[in-house]
Amino acid sequence: MRWLAELRSVVDERLARYLSAKREAAARLAPEAPELVRAVEALTLRGGKRLRPAILHAAFRAVAPDRDPAEVVDAAAALELLQTYLLIHDDWMDRDEERRGGAAVHAALRDAHGGDAHLGASLAILAGNLASACAWELITAGDREPDVDRRVRDVFLRMHQEVVYGQQLDLLATSDVSLMQQLKTGSYTLRGPLSLGAALGRATDAQTDALLAYGRPLGEAFQMRDDLLGTFGDEGATGKPTAGDLRAGKRTALIGAAEERGTDAQLAPLRAVLGDAAADAAAIAAAREALVQVGAKAAVEARLSTLTGQAIEALSSGGLHEPGVTMLRELAEALGARDR
Amino acid sequence: MRWLAELRSVVDERLARYLSAKREAAARLAPEAPELVRAVEALTLRGGKRLRPAILHAAFRAVAPDRDPAEVVDAAAALELLQTYLLIHDDWMDRDEERRGGAAVHAALRDAHGGDAHLGASLAILAGNLASACAWELITAGDREPDVDRRVRDVFLRMHQEVVYGQQLDLLATSDVSLMQQLKTGSYTLRGPLSLGAALGRATDAQTDALLAYGRPLGEAFQMRDDLLGTFGDEGATGKPTAGDLRAGKRTALIGAAEERGTDAQLAPLRAVLGDAAADAAAIAAAREALVQVGAKAAVEARLSTLTGQAIEALSSGGLHEPGVTMLRELAEALGARDR
Repeated sequence: MRWLAELRSVVDERLARYLSAKREAAARLAPEAPELVRAVEALTLRGGKRLRPAILHAAFRAVAPDRDPAEVVDAAAALELLQTYLLIHDDWMDRDEERRGGAAVHAALRDAHGGDAHLGASLAILAGNLASACAWELITAGDREPDVDRRVRDVFLRMHQEVVYGQQLDLLATSDVSLMQQLKTGSYTLRGPLSLGAALGRATDAQTDALLAYGRPLGEAFQMRDDLLGTFGDEGATGKPTAGDLRAGKRTALIGAAEERGTDAQLAPLRAVLGDAAADAAAIAAAREALVQVGAKAAVEARLSTLTGQAIEALSSGGLHEPGVTMLRELAEALGARDR
Repeated sequence: MRWLAELRSVVDERLARYLSAKREAAARLAPEAPELVRAVEALTLRGGKRLRPAILHAAFRAVAPDRDPAEVVDAAAALELLQTYLLIHDDWMDRDEERRGGAAVHAALRDAHGGDAHLGASLAILAGNLASACAWELITAGDREPDVDRRVRDVFLRMHQEVVYGQQLDLLATSDVSLMQQLKTGSYTLRGPLSLGAALGRATDAQTDALLAYGRPLGEAFQMRDDLLGTFGDEGATGKPTAGDLRAGKRTALIGAAEERGTDAQLAPLRAVLGDAAADAAAIAAAREALVQVGAKAAVEARLSTLTGQAIEALSSGGLHEPGVTMLRELAEALGARDR
């Protein structure tokens, strides 16, 4: 997908330029102030799949093939800064020490301030708040008709609020895992960027509906892929700890599928590591093997494939245009197969 | 000031209505979700001086005496929700357990969740983030000309960012206390609300300048009053711990004035309690007495009075109108004399 590589470089360049100006403005305010911007910069520019910008761009092109794609670059950058804000806060809440192959922001700031965990966490929360303000700045930038502005604002607000509730449900270990995931991830990964693309592209109602019909199954598929990676993924590729979901005792779709299928004896190696942060490599390997043996891995992969197919099918309705439709299809296929 | 009491009830009513609708919407999303809204509601509706709405309202009336004051009610409510968000986050960062005569949000949520401090803090951060999103929703509500919208957005963004940097400097105990206070408090207490009133009232440049010339000395005076209350204030009135600034070892204007004036012997009782969270009532009384004896209290009060006079003088320039000018003068006088 050459378009995706090109889009990434456009968005990265915009983020780098925006944050560099923000850092210089902070330096004029107070000598200490750039530290927060640097924290935001480091995490934002260090990798990241730029998936949400890609979804936004493809949706925009599917509804407005004749408009200039440059119109959505600021909104794409805003989505990345919204993500930076959420990742910074969530990593502290979830006590994750690593992110995108480097130290999580609260950990980096703690280490930069003599190991003071409370100060590091406080500065990280502020860095997240700054990223949130920056996201608002970018999403409201540009001259648009008032009704387009309003739609964009409403989508962004809804996304922001849903993801707050989703993280709350995650912290409370709610029993409704699917609702939690829908709010926490689905909202700002798929529905949000698709709705933004629709709003910015002045989509018809039918086009918006088609995009959302594409997003719903794909959001679920995305989460299943996350579950597979969180259990079977390789730390080198994902940048997250190997089998982190098992160690954290997360009730992923894999665990649900295993419990439907396995006997107590078959599930014993799985239950032995579930929630055990210190489980060793042999125990993890045995738990993975159990998930394969009872057919849980295959079941989740099959469901993922069905959902991806449903998403792609939705693209033929509603009067969506090329080249956006092809981009959205390529994204759906890539999301199902991604290894990070 | 009957107008102030009326304004408070209008703003309170708007906040109560808005947050109640938000809570009901959250309940439709997930059974756990209203807890965050309730935390925001409890703190927002529990007292609060509604000072920022008053400044905004008075500024608006001083530049647009013929416009309907109802136009700024949503912006006034947005200022209160911005403050709620900042108070929630700051109280956790500063480890304050009380706010507005009740438990700080992180403390209340910790206690509601079996004493789990990390969970309570995480939920409090989320409640703050929700309040921030609500503030954005209210500040961008309403149909306005695009250029007014842009000014409003820019003021709000600047306020939000400056207050983040101000809190950062506070956490880092920067030596430039005046810059910290200007960013942390001055920005969203005076300059922000005044600039918002100017933007919403379509102020001329001369009017905006006059409002800002009123705000600058008053911001400094406001901080001095805060310093006096943080040392000499009564917990029953302020809702904050008695002599909290002394116990926290804050380098307030009072400490600066005392060190300029006192001998080591005179300052000994002060230095004995500064930064001692466990200082007893007798030690606090002796430290206060030292501040009076060396003339530090009188010096700060004199400076406060001078600054208030300068603020009031600025109101006669720039073509500001009644009744806004009288309101702004009354607010300046009340701020200098407030006991909470």
